[in-house]
Amino acid sequence: MRQAGRALPEYREARRHGSILDSIRDPALAAEITLQPVRRYGVDAAILFSDIVVPVEALGFGVDIRPGVGPVVERPFASESDLARLRPLEPEADIPYVLETIRILRHELTAVPLIGFAGAPFTVASYLVEGGPSRDHARTKALMWGRPDLWATLLERLADVAVATLRAQVEAGAQAVQLFDSWVGALSPADYRRHVLPASARVLEGVADLGVPRIHFGVGTGELLELMAEAGADVVGVDWRVPLDRARARLGDGVAVQGNLDPVSVLAGWEVVRVRADEIVEQGGGRGHIFNLGHGVLPDSDPGVLTALVDHVHSGGAVA
Amino acid sequence: MRQAGRALPEYREARRHGSILDSIRDPALAAEITLQPVRRYGVDAAILFSDIVVPVEALGFGVDIRPGVGPVVERPFASESDLARLRPLEPEADIPYVLETIRILRHELTAVPLIGFAGAPFTVASYLVEGGPSRDHARTKALMWGRPDLWATLLERLADVAVATLRAQVEAGAQAVQLFDSWVGALSPADYRRHVLPASARVLEGVADLGVPRIHFGVGTGELLELMAEAGADVVGVDWRVPLDRARARLGDGVAVQGNLDPVSVLAGWEVVRVRADEIVEQGGGRGHIFNLGHGVLPDSDPGVLTALVDHVHSGGAVA
Repeated sequence: MRQAGRALPEYREARRHGSILDSIRDPALAAEITLQPVRRYGVDAAILFSDIVVPVEALGFGVDIRPGVGPVVERPFASESDLARLRPLEPEADIPYVLETIRILRHELTAVPLIGFAGAPFTVASYLVEGGPSRDHARTKALMWGRPDLWATLLERLADVAVATLRAQVEAGAQAVQLFDSWVGALSPADYRRHVLPASARVLEGVADLGVPRIHFGVGTGELLELMAEAGADVVGVDWRVPLDRARARLGDGVAVQGNLDPVSVLAGWEVVRVRADEIVEQGGGRGHIFNLGHGVLPDSDPGVLTALVDHVHSGGAVA
Repeated sequence: MRQAGRALPEYREARRHGSILDSIRDPALAAEITLQPVRRYGVDAAILFSDIVVPVEALGFGVDIRPGVGPVVERPFASESDLARLRPLEPEADIPYVLETIRILRHELTAVPLIGFAGAPFTVASYLVEGGPSRDHARTKALMWGRPDLWATLLERLADVAVATLRAQVEAGAQAVQLFDSWVGALSPADYRRHVLPASARVLEGVADLGVPRIHFGVGTGELLELMAEAGADVVGVDWRVPLDRARARLGDGVAVQGNLDPVSVLAGWEVVRVRADEIVEQGGGRGHIFNLGHGVLPDSDPGVLTALVDHVHSGGAVA
């Protein structure tokens, strides 16, 4: 469960001082925050506490993460000259704290695997181009359509950054990787195929030899699922809008599905969650299905409901 | 093209004084604003200048439309007692200015038909329950799942309001109606079928005897298209995420499709728009297709590009 810590009082206590980037840069603290939901909920995997903009921030692109807003970029990407601000990532020099966090976690995590992650080229590019979160991704699309060569070069650079961070995470001890393309659901399949798939495939191909499962996730991606699998995923994340049996029909048997409880349902209480969890287990079909929320945990979620959910899914044997 | 006026200097001039609700309440001004995009772009239909919250505002629910924000509700809908704030709409008494605007337009509009509209029960409810625009519709879903009976009653009331406003609009001269369920794409098909379809079907059935085309539109509704047709639509609006040939395969031949140029593409200039418009005409298949944007016109759009688009589609004969 991504961002599962946000609902926990021990997370709020741990994050009392400093910014989210400060917390990510403190390996002991980042490891502790990663472990909190594992301890509290008994989930079957830990997901690294970090953020998709950490590598580009470490390259000096000028990114901040503002509470209640998200990533904000002081000087957005606008032209060829901004490519110079995206040199190749050297993980041991640029993000040593991320790797140190993973090394700590490999000692601490004995029962469950650790999932590392990176932002997919499209979603990271959307932050760099828009300068922050966006409703319609107008600047991003204008660059993609109006300057397709520059766009392709930008995405290739970001793909190489993602490959470097994921390889380093696996070498440090991560046992699976997730590629987050959170906002790519804003595109049509034709745009995805032409302007995004080559770069995402470059990332997933770039870690294929490591032999770890590759999870590929976005929101509002019902029309893109097949293409996200084609990019090279072993597991495709599905949001709550697409029933899992429908997703599997589109994806075929070659990939597993992950999802897809609506995170908002957790706010409606245990009885609502229980009924919906059972439906999802049934639609998941009992094979090649990782039960998860269809998006990140909402901060107002009741930890008791999430604990009950994990217990319930475990008792039903829904986790692949 | 919905909200086509927003990109026009003559619209900004006309709207220089007063709020959007003031403009809607001024029939001469509202009629003028409705006519502006018809004059400027030569489109094949006019869409009434109004807003989906106008009827509930007229009932005294306490709704304002804030520039740059959208509809805001002072005291959101929270419990049974709030149902008393939603009495039946009496269009001639409650929204006489809307009907007067339509009567003016019936004199002025000689070459093209006028499309009236209403907000669908889910989307209007989401504003009333959230108190304003929402990212995750958490309160709306919590009410829908946690209090399904109260939710059903709320949606039934809003369906009756929509029927009353649409019937009055047609009687005053509107020659087609559009039901806007802008935010219903936040739901899964199972939730739509159980918690929304009955109320939307009540609206569309409630105007069936009037013999005017009924258009049903939402955003991010790829998984819901069949159900939106099942609710009783003659035309289903499709956003840019779903290729029209794929939409038609899901919908069958019984309904027409409307759409689906990404409104953001207009910002990328004429060459980008031209290529994409041709693809859409081809995917639309030349029959039962109303060419349109996949969502409202963005305020920064270049009127020259929109004029070229309309001319181009007309010359290709893409309008059904």
